Amino acid sequence: MIIVVKNTSDEGQVANLIDWVKDLGLDVHLSRGEHSTVIGLIGDTSKVDIDLISSLDVVEKVQRVGEPFKNANRKFHPEDTVIDVGGAKIGGDYFTVIAGPCSVESEKQIIEVANAVKASGATLLRGGAFKPRTSPYAFQGLRDEGIKYLLKAKEETGLPIVTELMSAFHIDLFKDVDVIQIGARNMQNFELLKEVGKTGKPVLLKRGLANTLQELLMSAEYIMSEGDSEVILCERGIRTFEPMTRNTLDLSAVPVLKGVTHLPIVIDPSHATGISKLVEPMSLASVGAGADGLMIEVHNDPMHALCDGAQSLNPEQFDLVMKKVKTMLPIVGKSII
Amino acid sequence: MIIVVKNTSDEGQVANLIDWVKDLGLDVHLSRGEHSTVIGLIGDTSKVDIDLISSLDVVEKVQRVGEPFKNANRKFHPEDTVIDVGGAKIGGDYFTVIAGPCSVESEKQIIEVANAVKASGATLLRGGAFKPRTSPYAFQGLRDEGIKYLLKAKEETGLPIVTELMSAFHIDLFKDVDVIQIGARNMQNFELLKEVGKTGKPVLLKRGLANTLQELLMSAEYIMSEGDSEVILCERGIRTFEPMTRNTLDLSAVPVLKGVTHLPIVIDPSHATGISKLVEPMSLASVGAGADGLMIEVHNDPMHALCDGAQSLNPEQFDLVMKKVKTMLPIVGKSII
Amino acid sequence: MIIVVKNTSDEGQVANLIDWVKDLGLDVHLSRGEHSTVIGLIGDTSKVDIDLISSLDVVEKVQRVGEPFKNANRKFHPEDTVIDVGGAKIGGDYFTVIAGPCSVESEKQIIEVANAVKASGATLLRGGAFKPRTSPYAFQGLRDEGIKYLLKAKEETGLPIVTELMSAFHIDLFKDVDVIQIGARNMQNFELLKEVGKTGKPVLLKRGLANTLQELLMSAEYIMSEGDSEVILCERGIRTFEPMTRNTLDLSAVPVLKGVTHLPIVIDPSHATGISKLVEPMSLASVGAGADGLMIEVHNDPMHALCDGAQSLNPEQFDLVMKKVKTMLPIVGKSII
Amino acid sequence: MIIVVKNTSDEGQVANLIDWVKDLGLDVHLSRGEHSTVIGLIGDTSKVDIDLISSLDVVEKVQRVGEPFKNANRKFHPEDTVIDVGGAKIGGDYFTVIAGPCSVESEKQIIEVANAVKASGATLLRGGAFKPRTSPYAFQGLRDEGIKYLLKAKEETGLPIVTELMSAFHIDLFKDVDVIQIGARNMQNFELLKEVGKTGKPVLLKRGLANTLQELLMSAEYIMSEGDSEVILCERGIRTFEPMTRNTLDLSAVPVLKGVTHLPIVIDPSHATGISKLVEPMSLASVGAGADGLMIEVHNDPMHALCDGAQSLNPEQFDLVMKKVKTMLPIVGKSII
Repeated sequence: MIIVVKNTSDEGQVANLIDWVKDLGLDVHLSRGEHSTVIGLIGDTSKVDIDLISSLDVVEKVQRVGEPFKNANRKFHPEDTVIDVGGAKIGGDYFTVIAGPCSVESEKQIIEVANAVKASGATLLRGGAFKPRTSPYAFQGLRDEGIKYLLKAKEETGLPIVTELMSAFHIDLFKDVDVIQIGARNMQNFELLKEVGKTGKPVLLKRGLANTLQELLMSAEYIMSEGDSEVILCERGIRTFEPMTRNTLDLSAVPVLKGVTHLPIVIDPSHATGISKLVEPMSLASVGAGADGLMIEVHNDPMHALCDGAQSLNPEQFDLVMKKVKTMLPIVGKSII
Repeated sequence: MIIVVKNTSDEGQVANLIDWVKDLGLDVHLSRGEHSTVIGLIGDTSKVDIDLISSLDVVEKVQRVGEPFKNANRKFHPEDTVIDVGGAKIGGDYFTVIAGPCSVESEKQIIEVANAVKASGATLLRGGAFKPRTSPYAFQGLRDEGIKYLLKAKEETGLPIVTELMSAFHIDLFKDVDVIQIGARNMQNFELLKEVGKTGKPVLLKRGLANTLQELLMSAEYIMSEGDSEVILCERGIRTFEPMTRNTLDLSAVPVLKGVTHLPIVIDPSHATGISKLVEPMSLASVGAGADGLMIEVHNDPMHALCDGAQSLNPEQFDLVMKKVKTMLPIVGKSII
Repeated sequence: MIIVVKNTSDEGQVANLIDWVKDLGLDVHLSRGEHSTVIGLIGDTSKVDIDLISSLDVVEKVQRVGEPFKNANRKFHPEDTVIDVGGAKIGGDYFTVIAGPCSVESEKQIIEVANAVKASGATLLRGGAFKPRTSPYAFQGLRDEGIKYLLKAKEETGLPIVTELMSAFHIDLFKDVDVIQIGARNMQNFELLKEVGKTGKPVLLKRGLANTLQELLMSAEYIMSEGDSEVILCERGIRTFEPMTRNTLDLSAVPVLKGVTHLPIVIDPSHATGISKLVEPMSLASVGAGADGLMIEVHNDPMHALCDGAQSLNPEQFDLVMKKVKTMLPIVGKSII
Repeated sequence: MIIVVKNTSDEGQVANLIDWVKDLGLDVHLSRGEHSTVIGLIGDTSKVDIDLISSLDVVEKVQRVGEPFKNANRKFHPEDTVIDVGGAKIGGDYFTVIAGPCSVESEKQIIEVANAVKASGATLLRGGAFKPRTSPYAFQGLRDEGIKYLLKAKEETGLPIVTELMSAFHIDLFKDVDVIQIGARNMQNFELLKEVGKTGKPVLLKRGLANTLQELLMSAEYIMSEGDSEVILCERGIRTFEPMTRNTLDLSAVPVLKGVTHLPIVIDPSHATGISKLVEPMSLASVGAGADGLMIEVHNDPMHALCDGAQSLNPEQFDLVMKKVKTMLPIVGKSII
């Protein structure tokens, strides 16, 4: 961390500031120039309150050097992390497709969809059992029953399953779930992140609606700091002023994240846009951007889906998307295992 | 809910759409004009997926009529809700000032601050025991010990206390807390909202960083639908592109919310701006906008605050703000009890 | 336009509202249901102030039916517009690459870059002569001299040229320019849009930093309403809260725009991200999303570029991007002429 | 400007970087620490491309020290600027109220409104003659005729007039206008800013919908660098995700701007919110925030306003707002001359 001291400050003030920094357990490196004095902070600055320093009267500017995340940092782990979920590989040169309905509605429905998406090349099955809904009066998911049906579909098809956890109270129900999803609204539910990190299971962590990429990595860090190194990042659209799509899919997040972290990154074009017709073009765009996979909503009867029907593909539409995706993968050097 | 059907659709398609709507348990009112056909949906439309209908081929536009929230709706409860917290009144013609440090750091500190803010006219004491921090490596609060110190400060000063709950696992520790705070990052942690609603205690619900006012009211609805009618809404800044303040304080939220809900609304200028010098002008602005109260960070030694020191006032600065606030209150017809 | 009247309004109020609407020269279609009264407005509603109607005491909701743009509307012009610029085709099944430096710096420089980008497959040459810079103290471009050099480069290479117009005062200098660019900051400089529409030349219209897609189309409409039908839309990133890229490239704009307009859409990944390493992945993503072309900054010596060097490719990097783009084009059914 | 060099860079690379900086005409101050090397740039860094430096391989971070604006900077001009417009004072301890209709519609209308707002205490008259409208099919203002009517109203009432200039082509028509307004959409129309700066007249500069406060000051700098020191800044709402108000009024802009510039700041609550009922609370909030004035839309017949009627007050409503504003002014130490 670098502190630039104001030209107008005197010796005493600078000395006070240095003492205060040393009290935090840090060393300093002082550099006096004709026009400005710069103090370099040496040591573990991750606990230093940058806003507090900025607010001090003698301080002109403060600049953090180096990222505040460690386990997720590519600097300390240059190779891509590749996560093996029951044979399905996520990260590196692999391309993963996670598909399934927004909500699990019945055993028959989830098995039907699972068979269909597997036939088209999906490698994992998704389906919501616990559903975060804006309204308390909307369908909240089949809950534990939904997880039972997902496990049935896994038994039937061999596809590992991904489903969302909304409360640490339910964590026992997730012991046979392959990948635990943390939804966008819980990205900064730090107590839940710690609990999920303790399970050691692969976690699919969705970016919050208005969270920066650095905050996403800090939330991954919460999980990893509990000893769980298998975190899959998921971009699913951010909130902007544009009303013609539900959210704005931030695809440049893919190469930006690739530069600073070794964790895999998948894209959810269904939630990002909220419009089924946009799933195909945004899936191909995701491949072009270098994503490690897709998470796509597929429903056998979108007209009657209990939630988010507007963004679901039917199995035929999904099959077409998969065909085009597969044609594109060699160009970016990836393949579906 | 009003559905406008496309000009290009034929009789059969319209009939199909009507059948489908009736399957949802709703009645319809059909109006055929020369240029457009409009279908009115009659009944409880709160569970209808508006995005799904928009996506149907025959549909031109859909418009929800009426708000999706009920308990929080001023239409069904025209008078302002006034909440009594151990004698401190929130809402109506009352103006409430909740003050205290970002984090509880020690028994001595919290009692000292409590005495100071009480002397200046604060009516409730705030202090963080469980702290949501972006980094897992940052100070996470004194947790249960922090709550003990807050209760000591309450005993000492008589000020009711407000403190943040981050996980339903900790709910038992909050049984003597007067007002449970739900932080911005947990505004859509729906499982937590349900649990807190079951306690029946007053809840201070902070608006999420990128949540609309309607979403804030829907989260209040989650709490209220569990039977808890004492919700205090709190605007604390939203995330925008402007870097010179930490967040952008959305003060027009006050009169907008006053128009649609009977719940009280308080403003947190400390977190909204992140800059202690802005607390005074934004406090006066909040009074002008018609807010029911303020939540202000006060620390006895901001230079050494364990978190968010940059936005804290010292007791002398807080006293000055209170003096100006009190002068302004008669103009907007409010008074501190 | 559909007006939903409040349940609480009486006959007289509804009659007044209808009279007022008729005063605007519109017909009405009244539909009275048990729970709501709906008034349909018939005629040219493009001049009706929707905010004013919303604010009337008797009105519950107002909904516009149909888009406010006409010339740009795909409904009235179902086929893709294909623009021919000196042999280079833009739109339809064609894929266009516009490349060149941010600023024209010298005759030698622009000719060198023009030759390089042509060799790699670019179909148009870009280069800034008039430069919109945030600071009045920054380099403002070579202005008329810059245009002279661009024309020299065109003579030398045969590439048609695209360059930005910032003021109607300069329009005469642009008479030999092939495509006039309107920059993001002037997207709603309506007087300039009218002037440029009068030239009849192809116009490349960049989306403003915080403008909706509908506003972009309304600005295209300004140009087209002067009789100029050759407008190329350009997405170049929108302003969000994310600091790791200069702007957030909104690639879902491509399929959304394709759905409502017949005009071609190109992407500027250089300005959108501000980072040269992101140009390749975002170019491939643009192809996947279905864009009609790219606008890429290429500089022969990015280290010394007078502006925006951080986002420029050198000719070798550009050549690599072109090779990958060309491999991808057949998958989306496009080709560079 | 401070450049932090990567730990991994060698002597040769650092020497190259220093040479390159010196080529830009700057001196350097080198400071080598154990953990990082910091290069301080000395001289006029306002033309240095910070993004370009950030992108260099050897660079870890770059930080600008000091603001890029000069004439508008409070550091070099500590006292508040007070602008005298025909006797009306703007800035310092004065509070200014600019009122009038969105559009000038007729001589009778503007004179009527002018008399009304003067009676209530307004000190300047506003009215649009040239109107920036999103749609080319909407009413574009009475243009030169509108200015004639405004001048008549000035003659009649003695109120100085404020009206918007949209194109440098019209500048001659504005020779008797007292304050030239630059609208939000033209805030970065740099060629227009230069032209208006040459007139030497007071300029009311509105913040763009998605422009930062620093960009607003840079645009003021464009005007001031032409020798015109009388710039009035105007906050009128920024674009966010919240749909219940047209824009989000950023009132913390007031104290933030006051800290860094000596120019006066006025607030436009009418355009910011788009809702007439919000004008009173947001006007009082503006006074509390420390604004130097208000710009309020007043219409004698809002139901028939040709534009933006939804946000206009009628003269009686305006009078009530003025009464409350006047009661509040002494608390913030301001008075209407």
